[in-house]
Amino acid sequence: MTAALAPPRALAFDVFGTVVDWRSGVARESTAFLSRIGRADIDPATFADAWRDRYGPSKASVRDDGRAFVVLDVLHREMLVDTLAGHGIDAATLAPALIDDWSTAWHRLDPWPDAVAGLARLRTRFPVVTLSNANVALMVALSRHGGLSWDAILGAEFSRTYKPAPETYRDAARALGLAPAELCLVAAHHSDLAGARACGLQTAYIDRPMEYGGARAPDADDRQRWDYDTAALTTLADRLGC
Amino acid sequence: MTAALAPPRALAFDVFGTVVDWRSGVARESTAFLSRIGRADIDPATFADAWRDRYGPSKASVRDDGRAFVVLDVLHREMLVDTLAGHGIDAATLAPALIDDWSTAWHRLDPWPDAVAGLARLRTRFPVVTLSNANVALMVALSRHGGLSWDAILGAEFSRTYKPAPETYRDAARALGLAPAELCLVAAHHSDLAGARACGLQTAYIDRPMEYGGARAPDADDRQRWDYDTAALTTLADRLGC
Repeated sequence: MTAALAPPRALAFDVFGTVVDWRSGVARESTAFLSRIGRADIDPATFADAWRDRYGPSKASVRDDGRAFVVLDVLHREMLVDTLAGHGIDAATLAPALIDDWSTAWHRLDPWPDAVAGLARLRTRFPVVTLSNANVALMVALSRHGGLSWDAILGAEFSRTYKPAPETYRDAARALGLAPAELCLVAAHHSDLAGARACGLQTAYIDRPMEYGGARAPDADDRQRWDYDTAALTTLADRLGC
Repeated sequence: MTAALAPPRALAFDVFGTVVDWRSGVARESTAFLSRIGRADIDPATFADAWRDRYGPSKASVRDDGRAFVVLDVLHREMLVDTLAGHGIDAATLAPALIDDWSTAWHRLDPWPDAVAGLARLRTRFPVVTLSNANVALMVALSRHGGLSWDAILGAEFSRTYKPAPETYRDAARALGLAPAELCLVAAHHSDLAGARACGLQTAYIDRPMEYGGARAPDADDRQRWDYDTAALTTLADRLGC
């Protein structure tokens, strides 16, 4: 943390992994669906990891490969179909409504234990927005499920591309009427923070050692010295005087 | 109200006039600024009306006349400069920071007395979003000023055009993952509700007899039989079982 850093004027949040525990939630949801299709033999946490593994290539197809923008709910459904195929299951043999329900497992994830209290404290002082790859419908459902409250939903659907495309960070600052250096991205992922820093935003890292069930994070080697570095949103609130 | 109407799945709100009292707020703010520039002789409510009168032509320049999209904060500043000119005041003779501050009078408007309680009740059952011509920064500031809370900020900046362009209503439904008929626009203005109805949305009219200080609303003749018709958001909450 740089002592001379001016406090930000607003905070923008990554959500999956930073605010909510996607792995436990997707595994819990998938336990029920795997049972319904007679495949309770598949480990649901491994299934969750396999589903999430498809996220990087999927969003890159939109961000970098010229595919027309589609929202994350659509990508999540495609990724689910592909994950099922990877387990020898042809989604075409299942009811479309079941696939629809399963693909919205990402709407029903629980916040990390510090998240609701930390966000509420941070919002007393700062406008707090999402800067996530989630689309609006997904973020609204997820927030209502977990009791999360935001000043605005920005990010991928607002910018019509996926992080870490520079537009996503720049658009969020501009929409809030701020210079990039007045906005701080809060995230548990070094690649996201690096993207924000490259656009001039402040950066706050939240360590989430259980995001991958205790396994080493895939981006652990990309750690930089971030402007703020804490293990909980309540601790970030302490640091920011909330 | 149609007895057979299915309840909406989400509510989208107009804000200026419907949720907040723009005329009193802009007049209150302008009282101070008119005094600062030595023109306390100008009636601030008349000044507020003159500023608002420029709103229709200003947003039409973007919506209909091919001007590149600019956010409402920018239009409000231009409209202020023009309103000053209409009172014989050349804005170029005033400090730019004063004009900037004055133009954000629209960030500091108070909610109608029923608004905070009504919205809180409606949000217990429905996702509640803004579908306003306000930009994100303006809506965030206005909401924090008045203690208003939303599930998302949609409307003009999200759609990059101004109501009543059909895209604004359609984009809001789509972003929420809803069919148009599942979304209800709540507004105090018949032209806005007519735009929403033309796109298939449900409509809820909120009567705000003091929006123009007790004067007849300019769109009073455009009244239709709306799906809901009430005089307060708390009454709408009653009707919708919240």
